[in-house]
Amino acid sequence: MRVLIILILTLPLLNACNSLPTVPDVIPSPSEILAKSTGDDWRKPDAENLLILQLETGQVIVELAPEFARGHVSNIKALAREEYFDGLAFYRVVEGFVAQGGDPEGDQKPIKQAQRSIPAELYLDQSLNSTFTLVDDRDGFAAETGYVSGFPVARSANGKQSWLTHCPGAFAMARDADPNSGGATFYIVIGHAPRYLDRNTTVFGKVLQGLEYVQQLRRGYGESGVIQSKEDYNPIKSIRVAADLPVSEQPALEVMRTDSVSFQKLIRARANRPEDWFYERPGYVDVCGVIPPVRSVK
Amino acid sequence: MRVLIILILTLPLLNACNSLPTVPDVIPSPSEILAKSTGDDWRKPDAENLLILQLETGQVIVELAPEFARGHVSNIKALAREEYFDGLAFYRVVEGFVAQGGDPEGDQKPIKQAQRSIPAELYLDQSLNSTFTLVDDRDGFAAETGYVSGFPVARSANGKQSWLTHCPGAFAMARDADPNSGGATFYIVIGHAPRYLDRNTTVFGKVLQGLEYVQQLRRGYGESGVIQSKEDYNPIKSIRVAADLPVSEQPALEVMRTDSVSFQKLIRARANRPEDWFYERPGYVDVCGVIPPVRSVK
Repeated sequence: MRVLIILILTLPLLNACNSLPTVPDVIPSPSEILAKSTGDDWRKPDAENLLILQLETGQVIVELAPEFARGHVSNIKALAREEYFDGLAFYRVVEGFVAQGGDPEGDQKPIKQAQRSIPAELYLDQSLNSTFTLVDDRDGFAAETGYVSGFPVARSANGKQSWLTHCPGAFAMARDADPNSGGATFYIVIGHAPRYLDRNTTVFGKVLQGLEYVQQLRRGYGESGVIQSKEDYNPIKSIRVAADLPVSEQPALEVMRTDSVSFQKLIRARANRPEDWFYERPGYVDVCGVIPPVRSVK
Repeated sequence: MRVLIILILTLPLLNACNSLPTVPDVIPSPSEILAKSTGDDWRKPDAENLLILQLETGQVIVELAPEFARGHVSNIKALAREEYFDGLAFYRVVEGFVAQGGDPEGDQKPIKQAQRSIPAELYLDQSLNSTFTLVDDRDGFAAETGYVSGFPVARSANGKQSWLTHCPGAFAMARDADPNSGGATFYIVIGHAPRYLDRNTTVFGKVLQGLEYVQQLRRGYGESGVIQSKEDYNPIKSIRVAADLPVSEQPALEVMRTDSVSFQKLIRARANRPEDWFYERPGYVDVCGVIPPVRSVK
């Protein structure tokens, strides 16, 4: 079950310990929070905002964020709908950094209706309409970081600018020297969060499920991590918008609402680590250290 | 050349841009800093503090930190010298988290002179003798973070406690419920920095070269990332102390001194990102975002 897998990833190495400082009973553990969550704490992602990437390693589900990058979401869906990505590849995979997918031949494949390059949407230049759930007001890269509509977000001190941050699993548009040059080549963060890229490229989604399949792609050891031999490219079998698939093939999953009380409790649990194994409780968590749980509803 | 590889890993996706805000000329780029560095800016690691891990994926070089965890360094060298690890395996590899190596059969392999469990050395409880080069005084997990003798270090506000932090490549001792239960099973951080583990386990070294070979190990999908089938274990061919090898087989590399002016410049360059590609310069870097360059001297 996916919920369990995600939690295990962030659990400590080994098991319980009884002789150490305990935290107040009011801080439940992540598993207790999940067990006590109600149906209202969960949402079913809109199939219009889900991309399904079929790779040789497995299926990857990306949730898109039109609230932050309407143009990028619209264009990647148009590309998916004209089956542009089918037969292209992840041809640049840098260990501990990003996997980049698109046309390895340098944008030779014709594009029909979509655009090859679109204006950057580096940040949202207005107050948010949706709830901002604070994770960290000591963040080094931004005044505050937190979650908005399921996505990790950083924002300026006055709250007038906000942007999706580069946490592991971030789905973003690659670009050339010109900030407005991206449109048809994307990347996914597979390693330590490269937060220094925030607002330098447009992040417009995040991996909900299957990040491990992106992390299993063959690495490149040419300049900048480009794969040197074509045979080593990681083929993209297809990229589809979930809403276009038969209902039986659409992902049946739910994500914890990041504006729910349960998620606020999860943030506290991630900062305070109430599990018995811990000896020193950090008392702090950064925005990339809290991942909204995903569960199967099949 | 290793220096180049390390820098490329942290370089942006694509190339130069001329029409954007520039930074003051006084901030040189990492490549300029390297080009202008002098011999005094580099050190040759002590072969007595280097572990050589031979894996099927490649050779991994770990530098040990006796300054922070004398007992752990002593014990792992004793284990290596009695060839304890040869034929054991990385049997727990969690995507985006850690690779754990030791005896998959649960500490069945006999240990001759070394210890199976040793007292934890979670932090150094005294002022540092060596130079602390500040990276971040806004760190969320500690009062300050920086580099000491080549290792990423966090410390308390009064400077009386300091500890090696869990950055990617951290080399640490796994443990059971009891903080003093570790001794012969280690782990290496392969994904996003799990800083919440700081001071919960003893970090006593870092990977200098070959982290990519650890990151290429087969993952486990059993509970807590344990590999379920023995055939899928990642064998450890051998672990040796470099000083015990013939000189011709010892690593011929140098590491930039973290108490050098060149490294201080590198920290500034990592925070300010003077490269033309950048549109928004972060003005901040965390301790895991600066890696001391390593160069071959063969």
